[in-house]
This record gives sequence, C-alpha cells and structure tokens, in this order.
Amino acid sequence: MNLKEPVIIGVDPGSEFMGIALLQVGKLKPSVILFETISLRSIKNKYERLGVIHKNMHDLLNKYKPNVLSIEAPFYSKNVKSTLTLGRVQGIIMALAIDSGIAIYEYAPRKIKKSITGRGAADKKQVWKMLKSILNLKDDPQHDDASDALAIAYCHYLQKDAHALESKALPVKNKNKKGTWKDFILANKDRLKK
Amino acid sequence: MNLKEPVIIGVDPGSEFMGIALLQVGKLKPSVILFETISLRSIKNKYERLGVIHKNMHDLLNKYKPNVLSIEAPFYSKNVKSTLTLGRVQGIIMALAIDSGIAIYEYAPRKIKKSITGRGAADKKQVWKMLKSILNLKDDPQHDDASDALAIAYCHYLQKDAHALESKALPVKNKNKKGTWKDFILANKDRLKK
Repeated sequence: MNLKEPVIIGVDPGSEFMGIALLQVGKLKPSVILFETISLRSIKNKYERLGVIHKNMHDLLNKYKPNVLSIEAPFYSKNVKSTLTLGRVQGIIMALAIDSGIAIYEYAPRKIKKSITGRGAADKKQVWKMLKSILNLKDDPQHDDASDALAIAYCHYLQKDAHALESKALPVKNKNKKGTWKDFILANKDRLKK
Repeated sequence: MNLKEPVIIGVDPGSEFMGIALLQVGKLKPSVILFETISLRSIKNKYERLGVIHKNMHDLLNKYKPNVLSIEAPFYSKNVKSTLTLGRVQGIIMALAIDSGIAIYEYAPRKIKKSITGRGAADKKQVWKMLKSILNLKDDPQHDDASDALAIAYCHYLQKDAHALESKALPVKNKNKKGTWKDFILANKDRLKK
C-alpha cells in the first residue's frame, strides 16, 4: 500500500449523465486529477445503465483509491419516479464507497454554491468561473455534469469539519480527528508526500 | 462451470428489513433453497446499511448463482424521502444482478398477489397460506419480508413469458426464447439435470 496525497471523489449522480471529479488535496493548492461526464444516454435498458454505473464507479475507486466521497444531496422533487431513479444511482455509488472503506458526505446544491462563490443562489456559470480560476483550469468541460462534480468535490475540501481522512484507504494515523481538514493536512504534511 | 437447475432469487427490498428467497425451478415442483429476512435495524448509519446490503447481495449471488432476479416493483408513495431510500436499496441489488449477468423482472404487489391467489386484493396471510401449501413448507417465517420475497420469486415462476434463462449464468442454449418458462424446462429437460 502506498502512502499518497488524499483524494476526494466528487459525484453528480444521474441516470443519463453522471459527473465525476477527482481532486487531490495534499498540496497547498488542490489539483484536479480528472473531471468528466459519463454519458449513459446510448444505453436504452434502465437496468443495464445501473450495471454500467456500478462498473465505472468500481473501476474508478480501484484505480484512484480516493479517501472520501462527496456527493450532491438530492433536491427533493415532486416527481416520485425520478426520485426513485436518482436513488438507484446514488445507492450504487454509496454502497461501493462503503465497500472501499471511505467516508461519504452529502451536500445540498445551495451549500455547494455558497461554499464556492459565497452565494447560495449563484448560477452554474458563476460557480464554474470561480473554480476555473482557483484550480487553474484552461478548458471548459463539454457537459455541466463534469464541472458540477468538481464543484461538489471542492465544496468538501472547503468544509472545516471534513473528517475526510478517517478512511482506511490512507494508512495515516490521524490524531487530529476533530480538527479541520487543513489542520490534518498540516499535521501529516511529511507523511502525505508521494 | 456446472450445469444446474435454474434458480430464481426473489427480493423484497427495504432499508430496515430485506426479504430474500431462492427458489429452484428445474424439477416438476419448485423447491425452496432458502427464504430469510436480513435485519438492518441494528445498523444506525444509513450508508453502512447500504454497504451491508451490497455485501450480502454480492455473497448470495456468488454462492447460489441464480439465473434471474425477481423484485417487487415500488408502490409509489407520496413520501419522497422514503422513495429515495427504497431507490438506493433497489439500485444496489439491480446493479449487482446486472454485474452477474442475470435478467431482472419487477412485479407490482397486486400482480404478485393475483398470480398466486387469483386475487390482487388478497392479504399477506392468504398469499402465505397458498405458498405454504404449494411449496410444502412447514414453519412460518419470523418476518413477513421473507415470505414476501418467496412470493415475489414464485410469481416470476408463474409468468408465461418469463425468459428467465436468457442469462449467461446457465450455459444452456435456449432455442425456445419466445416460448413459455415451462416450454423451456421441457425443451432442456435433459440438460437441466444436476
């Protein structure tokens, strides 16, 4: 098992498009490993879509071994059918995260926007503009889902109470469990080198 | 890979109690391998519950290699939050089924009751009485969830259009894809021996 810098996986769950972002946060400035949209539109069978989500998520967790999952909390719509579909996608992602021994954090859309821009009512463009600047990103993603996932991952990084490294994925003893994320990074600075 | 008699796994999904039944259907009369309730009540963390469901389901599919999943279709309640939770549980089960290459069938509660007792409005007791008699069962289960799962599995067995063996889990060429379940059993009688 290699010591490595902590990684947050951000997920914007959806059954047609799913946003995934991996953010490495051991350095002074977090760096983006990837952010992308998995398109499921071409798969017409609804069960097959779930299988593809399961496979993709399983492979991503195995490959990048993130330490924490940050996922968008559902906006409770009145449409019960779409809530069920969203639940199905979420359940797969969450179960695989637990299976990998990593912690799960859910953030509501308003919380994500507020953490990044200071305003809960900010629009997607404003959130993206801010992220692009902070994370030194050049290109805009083709789909919003990818940038949404990055916003979700970055939102977790900004939380003061993020016990993001309680995970077994990183073999670092965290004596600072009740401290902030930044405190933890500082306390384990030497051990967090690649 | 061993040839074996086809097995239906029936699931009554829930985040507190989950019913599981395994029904072997290659013989003239189907036989029950197991039917049980997995209690998740003692697990207080909602994410951990999903992890336990994932692990249990994964192990069951690996151990018994069923050929088809029969699962209760949701009753669309007005409670969006409980629909989301149900969706999470369903998603895990469905994704693992697809991962194992088995087909998924959903049946509404009324359809299940009607298939078994002839009446969609039958109560749980009537359904259980019928199942107990047909399947030669002696003891009543401790929880309804177990018998519900058995009803769901048996309901699939009764469907005339059940293409239950299209699965890769059973290495039998089904030339009778558009025939009935019984036709298939007959056509493959020799190959279905243990």
